[in-house]
Amino acid sequence: MRPVDSLTPAWIVVDWGTTSFRAALVTLAGTVLAQIETPEGIQVIPDRAYEPVLMRALEGWFAAHGPLPVVALGMITSRTGWVEVPYVCCPARAADLAAGTFRQTLPNGAKLIFLAGLTDPARKPFADVMRGEETQILGFGVARDATLVLPGTHSKWARLRSGAIESFQTFVTGEIFALLSQHSFIAKAGAGQNDPPDWAAFDSGVAEAASEGAYADAFLSLLFSVRTGMLAGALGASQILDYVSGLVIGHEFREARGQGWFKTGDAIGIVGNDQLNLRYGKVAQAFGLKVLDGGEGAAIAGAMVLCRLFDKESPDAD
Amino acid sequence: MRPVDSLTPAWIVVDWGTTSFRAALVTLAGTVLAQIETPEGIQVIPDRAYEPVLMRALEGWFAAHGPLPVVALGMITSRTGWVEVPYVCCPARAADLAAGTFRQTLPNGAKLIFLAGLTDPARKPFADVMRGEETQILGFGVARDATLVLPGTHSKWARLRSGAIESFQTFVTGEIFALLSQHSFIAKAGAGQNDPPDWAAFDSGVAEAASEGAYADAFLSLLFSVRTGMLAGALGASQILDYVSGLVIGHEFREARGQGWFKTGDAIGIVGNDQLNLRYGKVAQAFGLKVLDGGEGAAIAGAMVLCRLFDKESPDAD
Repeated sequence: MRPVDSLTPAWIVVDWGTTSFRAALVTLAGTVLAQIETPEGIQVIPDRAYEPVLMRALEGWFAAHGPLPVVALGMITSRTGWVEVPYVCCPARAADLAAGTFRQTLPNGAKLIFLAGLTDPARKPFADVMRGEETQILGFGVARDATLVLPGTHSKWARLRSGAIESFQTFVTGEIFALLSQHSFIAKAGAGQNDPPDWAAFDSGVAEAASEGAYADAFLSLLFSVRTGMLAGALGASQILDYVSGLVIGHEFREARGQGWFKTGDAIGIVGNDQLNLRYGKVAQAFGLKVLDGGEGAAIAGAMVLCRLFDKESPDAD
Repeated sequence: MRPVDSLTPAWIVVDWGTTSFRAALVTLAGTVLAQIETPEGIQVIPDRAYEPVLMRALEGWFAAHGPLPVVALGMITSRTGWVEVPYVCCPARAADLAAGTFRQTLPNGAKLIFLAGLTDPARKPFADVMRGEETQILGFGVARDATLVLPGTHSKWARLRSGAIESFQTFVTGEIFALLSQHSFIAKAGAGQNDPPDWAAFDSGVAEAASEGAYADAFLSLLFSVRTGMLAGALGASQILDYVSGLVIGHEFREARGQGWFKTGDAIGIVGNDQLNLRYGKVAQAFGLKVLDGGEGAAIAGAMVLCRLFDKESPDAD
């Protein structure tokens, strides 16, 4: 048992995705003492040489604090990553996720625990999957029954019930927005992204996606409003990308409502990064939803829920 | 009046789009005597230097047959083309489209007639537009009441009633397929397009889009089945792109049915290029539709419907 106080590093949490590498030095209570972020996502690592990249990234922390245990989540645990950890099945509690890990030892003797992803076998046409978001959900907390949305390249809607992640569904919203904004004819007239966003343009995209008119059901048709809106003089070049963003995120909510994830007046949690949370919060409001608190910094908090379970295991468990 | 026989060139029809230049030497009856196709689409012509490109492309025909009149359609008549010809409004008959042209004279004295596009002001959220497809519709023939689909980057569904193009709606199906197949994460595992297509994979994508299950309503979610199908072992890398093609075209039909363009058992016309017509024909069948004959070579046939009207005008009309 290591000594535990408010400033003692206890674990290193590595969130290693397709396009980025993020690590945090964390106390057992979940306080983040230091963070690293690099663009060394798994897609840029040649020959699956993940271990040297990890050791180099963490060498300063290992030198200062000894061989702290490392917990890894995200696409690094997928078929295209370091080791493929089998998916845990819904409904899943924290203990089910903790039991589904894959473990090995780093060259310096530090323990490395790969977290499992989650699968929902009830989805059609094929079982749905997530890798990393299940940990964010634990960080949000599974004690209360709730519906959550986790914005991202592949957004997830999830239902918490009786202390478990009961079910979830993926929407490829962020990917479609990226494709439209970077490569499409219909958005090529756009003048790049605004910072801060043009909220009026965003809101008008959301309003179309939330329209009571049946025309808004047809996503492939609604997207053409980017061009017809410009031709009609209703959208300027500088507004295109924020309009598309509102249209696409708005349509995710329209579809999620159609799939039974919420109805007007419900409360939902929005779990993810600040920038997207703001956009999702505005869309939630347009769809008549209340937003629950607690969606920030969820990945590290969720990893620490599991690390505290690991620390309680008998020493010969791994 | 020029002499007219079965081998006399009467008009040159130029279908000039964003990515290609096509010209046909045509008799008054619509027989195509010769054709030219180059990749000189309007997007690659610098400084709007359209006239020299046109004159160079047609110089052989002008030398052999004199300054034949030229009719031009497609994106060349748009805001980003040579001249922006205002849209004619739905409902529109051939005579309305013939009256909406813009005319000028080429350096050799040949008449150049830019055809109008068509707008449907009843569409939401903005008036819909087409440029070129209205001419294909004339080529299909507007005498019988019918519903047509014109497959393409931006597919059009159109209704013919009482000799007019009554209404239409755009779906950006081809563009979304191109984005997904060329740039997306979810399809990047795909092994390129099959020639001939893997029809079994295509059909399974169509079957999902045509499913009676409500899950198939959610396009942004259904797209993720490309990845989950691979993870489930149901889709191999070589099947991905044909599956996506079936899924996306199938969803266009699902949305079009939802928008009231057809119901099971109806007959529709498929007007466009052979390769896409085959795919659309298979999807039409999966949605319980009969396919009307007459969708091939429609652009030139439609242009000649208008050219015969131009030839009947009094000599001082232009």
